[in-house]
Amino acid sequence: MMYSLYDFLPSGNGYKVRLLLTQRGIPFELIEVDILKGETRTPEFLAKNPNGRIPILEIEAGVYLSESNAILIYLSQGTPYLPDDRLEYAQVMQWLFFEQYSHEPFIATSRFWRMHGMTEQKQQALEEKQAPGYAALSVMEQRLATHPFLVSDRYTIADIALYAYTHVADEGGFSLSNFPATQAWIERIQAQPYHIPITQSRFDLPPG
Amino acid sequence: MMYSLYDFLPSGNGYKVRLLLTQRGIPFELIEVDILKGETRTPEFLAKNPNGRIPILEIEAGVYLSESNAILIYLSQGTPYLPDDRLEYAQVMQWLFFEQYSHEPFIATSRFWRMHGMTEQKQQALEEKQAPGYAALSVMEQRLATHPFLVSDRYTIADIALYAYTHVADEGGFSLSNFPATQAWIERIQAQPYHIPITQSRFDLPPG
Repeated sequence: MMYSLYDFLPSGNGYKVRLLLTQRGIPFELIEVDILKGETRTPEFLAKNPNGRIPILEIEAGVYLSESNAILIYLSQGTPYLPDDRLEYAQVMQWLFFEQYSHEPFIATSRFWRMHGMTEQKQQALEEKQAPGYAALSVMEQRLATHPFLVSDRYTIADIALYAYTHVADEGGFSLSNFPATQAWIERIQAQPYHIPITQSRFDLPPG
Repeated sequence: MMYSLYDFLPSGNGYKVRLLLTQRGIPFELIEVDILKGETRTPEFLAKNPNGRIPILEIEAGVYLSESNAILIYLSQGTPYLPDDRLEYAQVMQWLFFEQYSHEPFIATSRFWRMHGMTEQKQQALEEKQAPGYAALSVMEQRLATHPFLVSDRYTIADIALYAYTHVADEGGFSLSNFPATQAWIERIQAQPYHIPITQSRFDLPPG
């Protein structure tokens, strides 16, 4: 069965999965869900993911995986995108949880608010996200100042997960001007084979 | 080398690791770090974890793992606490990311504020955590109404990760009275061999 990806194209979390599927050359059906219109809160959607969020990936008929980073792990086991080495494997996991806890709630949420409607009420909350967002970028910069990638000196799902919202941090009101190693890393990610930009649904798939 | 766990005993995130180490019968040195006194922000601590958070586990001399759920994965690979089956493995990952993104920031943060000093400034933020915290509990309840554990009908690190703050949700201002399946699950977790309560550093280790 071909995978079906339920996704909202501006979402960095959805983009992570779209990017890995594309780079692995795995065909998938894209089902767009407009989160701005409440389409993740319908009974039909909640039956697929009770937590009411995209992306979700239908991996067998009626079997849905949620949580973007869990889907990345599922799709990368046994591939070069996820190291076998026990320590490196754990370091990938470390970055994935860092992304969801210390990066996404500040940088991605700021971007979402700015893209999809700021209110005066949110202004203070937006400002309060600046310091922790920059702290997360500093943690990345510290690693990337001495290594080409986040783990193991090669491109892994840790890079995919952190790239998703870091490369559009400006849309969340975060400047990368003081993060030169992160900027160089972004270019390194964009130079990977079969890279696609965010909001693109898929690359022309590689043969075979 | 014996593991060293840098931990703050009231922390549910630290407790997850303490509980799994204890249940697996793995000895460890406990190094208490008082996060209320800024001890995770010293240069010495930041050299171990640039993100400045406990728990961290020193797994080899000078090699530190951070992110509680990444540490759980590291410590459970190849054991009954983490299923081998590809789908069940992914479902464990799904719950671990759910915990860090949709549960911990509401229930654990509310508990932390209430335990370690509320301010008037935080009152509104505390109230805003009620709805998403209860939403997370509802997602768990829905699963547990028809299954004894979160994944695979047996006790895994998904249960350990979600138990850590769910069983003390009342300290965060969340009542479990409308979540009977979750209450029964809590009792099921507490009945597991070598269970230890939160704030306890370790059980008498099993022989061998």
